[in-house]
Amino acid sequence: MNTSKPVAMGASLLANDLGEQARSLRGCYKRPLTGNRAFTKALTALLFALPLFAQAADPLPSWNDGPAKKSIIEFVQTVTAPNNKGFVQPEARIAVFDNDGTLWSEQPGYFEELFAFDEIKRMAAQHPEWKDQQPFKAVIENDHKALAEGGMEGLLKIFMATHAGLTTDEFRDNVQRWLSTARHPTTGKPYTEMVYKPMLEVLDYLRGQGFTPYMVSGGDTGFMRVFAEEVYGIPPEHVIGSTFVTEYQLKDGKPSILRTAKIAHNDDGPGKPVSIDSVIGRRPILAFGNSDGDLQMLQWTAAGAGPHFMGLVHHTDAKREWAYDKDSKIGRLDKALDEAKKQDWTIVDMATEWRQIYPFESTGTQHPQ
Amino acid sequence: MNTSKPVAMGASLLANDLGEQARSLRGCYKRPLTGNRAFTKALTALLFALPLFAQAADPLPSWNDGPAKKSIIEFVQTVTAPNNKGFVQPEARIAVFDNDGTLWSEQPGYFEELFAFDEIKRMAAQHPEWKDQQPFKAVIENDHKALAEGGMEGLLKIFMATHAGLTTDEFRDNVQRWLSTARHPTTGKPYTEMVYKPMLEVLDYLRGQGFTPYMVSGGDTGFMRVFAEEVYGIPPEHVIGSTFVTEYQLKDGKPSILRTAKIAHNDDGPGKPVSIDSVIGRRPILAFGNSDGDLQMLQWTAAGAGPHFMGLVHHTDAKREWAYDKDSKIGRLDKALDEAKKQDWTIVDMATEWRQIYPFESTGTQHPQ
Repeated sequence: MNTSKPVAMGASLLANDLGEQARSLRGCYKRPLTGNRAFTKALTALLFALPLFAQAADPLPSWNDGPAKKSIIEFVQTVTAPNNKGFVQPEARIAVFDNDGTLWSEQPGYFEELFAFDEIKRMAAQHPEWKDQQPFKAVIENDHKALAEGGMEGLLKIFMATHAGLTTDEFRDNVQRWLSTARHPTTGKPYTEMVYKPMLEVLDYLRGQGFTPYMVSGGDTGFMRVFAEEVYGIPPEHVIGSTFVTEYQLKDGKPSILRTAKIAHNDDGPGKPVSIDSVIGRRPILAFGNSDGDLQMLQWTAAGAGPHFMGLVHHTDAKREWAYDKDSKIGRLDKALDEAKKQDWTIVDMATEWRQIYPFESTGTQHPQ
Repeated sequence: MNTSKPVAMGASLLANDLGEQARSLRGCYKRPLTGNRAFTKALTALLFALPLFAQAADPLPSWNDGPAKKSIIEFVQTVTAPNNKGFVQPEARIAVFDNDGTLWSEQPGYFEELFAFDEIKRMAAQHPEWKDQQPFKAVIENDHKALAEGGMEGLLKIFMATHAGLTTDEFRDNVQRWLSTARHPTTGKPYTEMVYKPMLEVLDYLRGQGFTPYMVSGGDTGFMRVFAEEVYGIPPEHVIGSTFVTEYQLKDGKPSILRTAKIAHNDDGPGKPVSIDSVIGRRPILAFGNSDGDLQMLQWTAAGAGPHFMGLVHHTDAKREWAYDKDSKIGRLDKALDEAKKQDWTIVDMATEWRQIYPFESTGTQHPQ
């Protein structure tokens, strides 16, 4: 569990518009391939995977033709061209993405934090003592001042009450239930629709070029896995996050896995290269983040022997999304921004580089073919 | 680190015979696919992946036509036939394999333990104090009695001295160096050749049928990753084992990952379903083990909603390998054997089911086509 950067999300996984879009973006993840259809699909995938048949269509239509788009495409072309000395074998094309602020929004608060608050309210009926007990009282009464006064210690109690002491199956069900009803406080959209279309395109582009994208984020692994495949096309085994110590238990012959109240790993800052090494065991050649919590993951990627790409999403668009960096409590981008400038990493100026931000925006100006 | 079941291995990763065999067994893992060759290869893979074009050749030539082989093939056919109600999507075809005693031998001692002993001897020159200090003195002097007297506590000291306090890169180099020279004490073979040919065939068969095989074993993850891809075709990201807490460090601008002396996870017994859930996030549909340390992994697999296969390698062949079960200190198979009989899991009687055990055996009677 990452107590310094809790996240949350909400939205209907069944929302057809985004669901369909996500499915088509990520290719053939979930559908059974049978008979002729399978053959056609596989052949199509094959043709697109072959460098000889370069994709004619723009792989990043929501990006303006700026320096960031150019650097992404040039990097991908470098590592995928068999005759290029920078060629990287497909199995080594590991790409890592932070989630909060990199793949979806993180304002006005980390989405997983908002999930935790909603869970406290839902559970309050079974905990009558909470109405006189902080920080729960503050959450139930929407008392932002008292909540702020509770600080990190209070937040930790809220996370423990909502994320621990239940089985992995129960937790998944809670997240799914919340996702199907919760709405973002300012846009009114399901949280799973508050994802960045340009980044969905990057994920899809990379997959089409033989990369394996992983999520490496401060959120709880079990939380993120509930929506990562549906929304990003990132399957459970490629989701790396913060974790609680879990315990195997056998009751009446039925096994389950209990989430204890002990934190096993905080997947933030230096915890990111540590989890990348532990879970993947290969060094990424591409890393994308947006805050100081991603600095070590970017450094670790930058220190690789072969070609590598480091990207930072810079939140500069107060009109379409939010604008914040060095002074923000959420997603602070300070040291990593300095380092990115010094090392010439790719800084994505959201306001100028992204033609469209969310999939739900009007697409009148989109996808010029 | 799994202190109750330390393992070790040794052998030349460059040994051409096994290397070539492993490469051909595991298909197209490492080779770059370019131009026409890529197209032909991909098309071939495609044809084999299609259920319509069933493989004519025997996928398990080192297995006798006994009940174990039959049950494996029947299970695979059930979950891969699109019109079967037991059909499982390819991405959910997760298969987990213990290593010691399941994929390679574990006698006369866990191979990683033998690595640790050899490392102590190699490091002794830099540690003159060890010649008067147990358990190091016992290792240096090959004093089995004193070593046994040191028990688990002594063994833990040996593991800490050889597995912790160095970077992940340094540890990998140490394992690689050892692999290139060490030989098994009774067969004289490199340890990486003491793998079970029938199980290599199972791995390859499963991969050809859209499964993803993972190693889930008590050995140190970093130790197993050094040879898992070369020998089993299992890439680093599919190797799950015991781990030390690691720390990201930055020296003179160069990042590295330090293996501390704190154990993070013991991947044995109940630790196996825990790591499977943590790293993969999906429940396996096939699990193979050989000892009581695999019981919970098998239970966890057996409790899945859809079709599932549980297999146990039973060491019954004192002539070609070793024979041991309920009373063995190494790889004890007691409770899991009872459970397997009770639940009708597949028990592989090595003596009767396996036509050939090691790849280096004479192949005069092998591969009848």
